[in-house]
Amino acid sequence: MKLTELMTPVALIDVPRMQHNIERMQTYVSKHGASFRPHVKTSKCVDATRAQLKAGAQGITVSTLKEAEQFFAAGFRDILYAVGLAPNKLVGAAALLRQGCDLKVLTDSVQSAQAIAAYGTQHGLSFKVLIEIDTDDHRSGIKPASAQLLEVARALTAPACELVGVLTHAGSSYDLNTPEALIALAEQERSGCVRAAERLRQAGFTCPSVSIGSTPTALCAQNLDGVTEVRAGVYIFFDLVMHNVGVCALNEIALSVLTTVIGHQEEKGWAIVDAGWMAMSRDRGTQKQTQDFGYGQVCDLNAVALEGYTISGANQEHGIVSRAAEPDLAIAKRFPIGTQLRILPNHACATGAQFPEYHALDHEGNSTTWSRFYGW
Amino acid sequence: MKLTELMTPVALIDVPRMQHNIERMQTYVSKHGASFRPHVKTSKCVDATRAQLKAGAQGITVSTLKEAEQFFAAGFRDILYAVGLAPNKLVGAAALLRQGCDLKVLTDSVQSAQAIAAYGTQHGLSFKVLIEIDTDDHRSGIKPASAQLLEVARALTAPACELVGVLTHAGSSYDLNTPEALIALAEQERSGCVRAAERLRQAGFTCPSVSIGSTPTALCAQNLDGVTEVRAGVYIFFDLVMHNVGVCALNEIALSVLTTVIGHQEEKGWAIVDAGWMAMSRDRGTQKQTQDFGYGQVCDLNAVALEGYTISGANQEHGIVSRAAEPDLAIAKRFPIGTQLRILPNHACATGAQFPEYHALDHEGNSTTWSRFYGW
Repeated sequence: MKLTELMTPVALIDVPRMQHNIERMQTYVSKHGASFRPHVKTSKCVDATRAQLKAGAQGITVSTLKEAEQFFAAGFRDILYAVGLAPNKLVGAAALLRQGCDLKVLTDSVQSAQAIAAYGTQHGLSFKVLIEIDTDDHRSGIKPASAQLLEVARALTAPACELVGVLTHAGSSYDLNTPEALIALAEQERSGCVRAAERLRQAGFTCPSVSIGSTPTALCAQNLDGVTEVRAGVYIFFDLVMHNVGVCALNEIALSVLTTVIGHQEEKGWAIVDAGWMAMSRDRGTQKQTQDFGYGQVCDLNAVALEGYTISGANQEHGIVSRAAEPDLAIAKRFPIGTQLRILPNHACATGAQFPEYHALDHEGNSTTWSRFYGW
Repeated sequence: MKLTELMTPVALIDVPRMQHNIERMQTYVSKHGASFRPHVKTSKCVDATRAQLKAGAQGITVSTLKEAEQFFAAGFRDILYAVGLAPNKLVGAAALLRQGCDLKVLTDSVQSAQAIAAYGTQHGLSFKVLIEIDTDDHRSGIKPASAQLLEVARALTAPACELVGVLTHAGSSYDLNTPEALIALAEQERSGCVRAAERLRQAGFTCPSVSIGSTPTALCAQNLDGVTEVRAGVYIFFDLVMHNVGVCALNEIALSVLTTVIGHQEEKGWAIVDAGWMAMSRDRGTQKQTQDFGYGQVCDLNAVALEGYTISGANQEHGIVSRAAEPDLAIAKRFPIGTQLRILPNHACATGAQFPEYHALDHEGNSTTWSRFYGW
C-alpha cells in the first residue's frame, strides 16, 4: 500500500531510518568490545527485533513476562527479563524455563532472592539470576558498595539459582543534554556495575556477565572496560526526547504517526487533526526539556519537519496543530481538510504502544504491516 | 477468580461503583427532561455499555469509526460519531450505513459538509449530519452566532444529507473546580447550543436534536431547556481529575489498577511496584490541578485510599510508591515485597486504553473478564 491509502491515524516505521539506527548502535557497541542485547519493550514487534539480531545483536531484553512469552513463541531463546522478579511472576518464569527458554531473571533484595531460591528448590528448577545494581539513584537496584550486594548473592543458593551477573540501567541519562554530562554518566554506569562485579568475584562468586545500558549512555560511552553486554531500547526508533538529549537528529527519528486534517479554527491559527493523545500517547517528555514539542513535531509526508509546527494540544481523538512563534492565520490554506501529515513522537515507547500494528515503509514509500502486541 | 489470584498489573472495574455512577448520571439527566447518550470512548467495552443502556441510555456516542464498527457488530444500532468526519472516513461511514447502522456524523466546515454531500450523491446514500458548535473556545466547532453556521447547513444538501441537529462539548469544564464555575459553564454550553439550533430553525432548517455534554457540565446543569440529549463518557468510572474538578468522591472511582510490590529503596521511602506508566498511562492530568496525585492514588485491596501515598514516579514497567508529606522510612515493612495494592488513575480513558481487558469485580470481590478493544 501507498502512504496516502492508509486510514489515519496509523503508526509508521521508516525502515531505512530504523536500519540506520540499528547499525549505528551495533557498530558503536561492537567497536568497544561488548555484545549488544536490544530491549524489545520499545517495539514489541518481532519483525523489528529480527532486524536487530540480523545486525549482530545477541539475545533480547524484555520488560514483561508477556514479552518473553511472545518472543519465545516467535523463536527467540536468549531472553533477559530486566525487571525485578515479583513472587507472583515465578510461575510464569518457571513455565518458560520448562519449555526450554534460556531466561535470565533479576533481583535486588534478599527477600526476592530467597523467594526465587525456594521456588526453584521446591520445583526442581534452576533460575539464572542477575543482581540489579543502582548506579545513578534512578530507580531500583543495590548500590555497588552496599553490604546488601553480598547478602543477595548468598541468598541465591545453588542449584535452584545460578548467579550469572550484574545489571544496571542509568535511566537518569534521559535528564541530561550535553555530551560531557552523558560521557560522565556513561562512565559512572560502567564503573559502578564493574565494581559490583569485582566485589562479588572477590567474595568468591562467579559473575560472568556485566550488563549495562540506556540509549544515551550506550551511544556516549568512551570505553566499556569490564563490561560484557550493553542494552538499549528506544534507539531503534529514537524520538523527540532523545533529540533533546542530543543523541539523534530529527531526521533519524524512525517512528511517526500519519494523521489527517479534519478541520480548523482559522482565527486561532489551528488545524485540527485526527491524531489526539490516544494516537500520540499522553507522554509529554519534552515539556521539561530545552525544546517543548507539545505532543509531537509536525512533518510533511516525507517526514521532513515543518519547523515551528507542533501538536500544541490534544484531546482523545483531536490534535491541535499550531505554530509556536505566532499563529499561522493562513493555516487553513496551508493544511486544507484532508491534508495528511506525519507527527514525530515525544517518546517512541509510549506512542508505539497505542497501536496494534505498525506500517513499515520501505525507501520507495510502500508499506507492509508489522504486528505489535500489548498488555501483560 | 479472586483478586489475589490475578496476575498484575491488571485493570479492575468495581462494578457496584460503576453501577452507582451510571444510575446517578441517568437519574440526573432524566430528571431534567433530556435523553442520555453515553460516550463509549471511555470503556470501549460492550459489557460496560450494556449496563448504561439497561439503565435507560438511548444510543451511544463514539470517537472513532472502529468504535462504531465494534459496537454495531455487537448489536448497537443508534450511533453518533462525535468527531468531525474527515474525507478519508467517508468510505467507512458509508459501509456502516449500508449495513443498516443508524449512524450520525458531524461537521463544522463548508468544505467537509460539501464532501459529505458529494459522496452521498455519488453513492446514492443519505448521511444524517449534526453541525458541531463551539460553546467554550475549547476545540472544534462553529460559534453559535457565526454566519458560517448557515453556510454549513446550506451545504448539507438533500437527499445526500439530512441535517438532524447541533452538538457541542464543553471540554473546558475539566479545567474548573468550583460548583459556581461549573454551573455557569453548563449554562453557557446549553444556551450556546440552543441558540445555534434556533438560528437554524429561524432560517428554515429542521434541527430536531440539540446534543450537549461533558461529565462535569452534565452533572451540574441546573436546567436543560431546549436540550434533547446529553452526552458524557468518563463518569462511568470517574477518576482523580474528576475528583479534583469536584464531581466525584475518591470512593466513587470505579477503575483501578491492581499492582504488586517488587522491591524497595528503603532510605528514600520508596516501594517499587509493577504498575509503571505502561499500566497507568502517561496521563498527568492532576499535575496542574489543586491536588497532584502523581501517576495515581494508592489504595488497599478494598480500593480504600491510603492517604498521602501516590505513584510519585513511573518508568515503563516500574512505579515508585512514596508518601508526599515526608518519606516513609518504614515503607518496606508497610508494603513488603508481594503486597498487592490498587491504584486509582488520573484519567480513566487513558488508563483503560493500556489494557486488553478489564476484570470486573462484583460486590463479593469475584472477577469476570470483560474484553476491551483498541486501535483505529
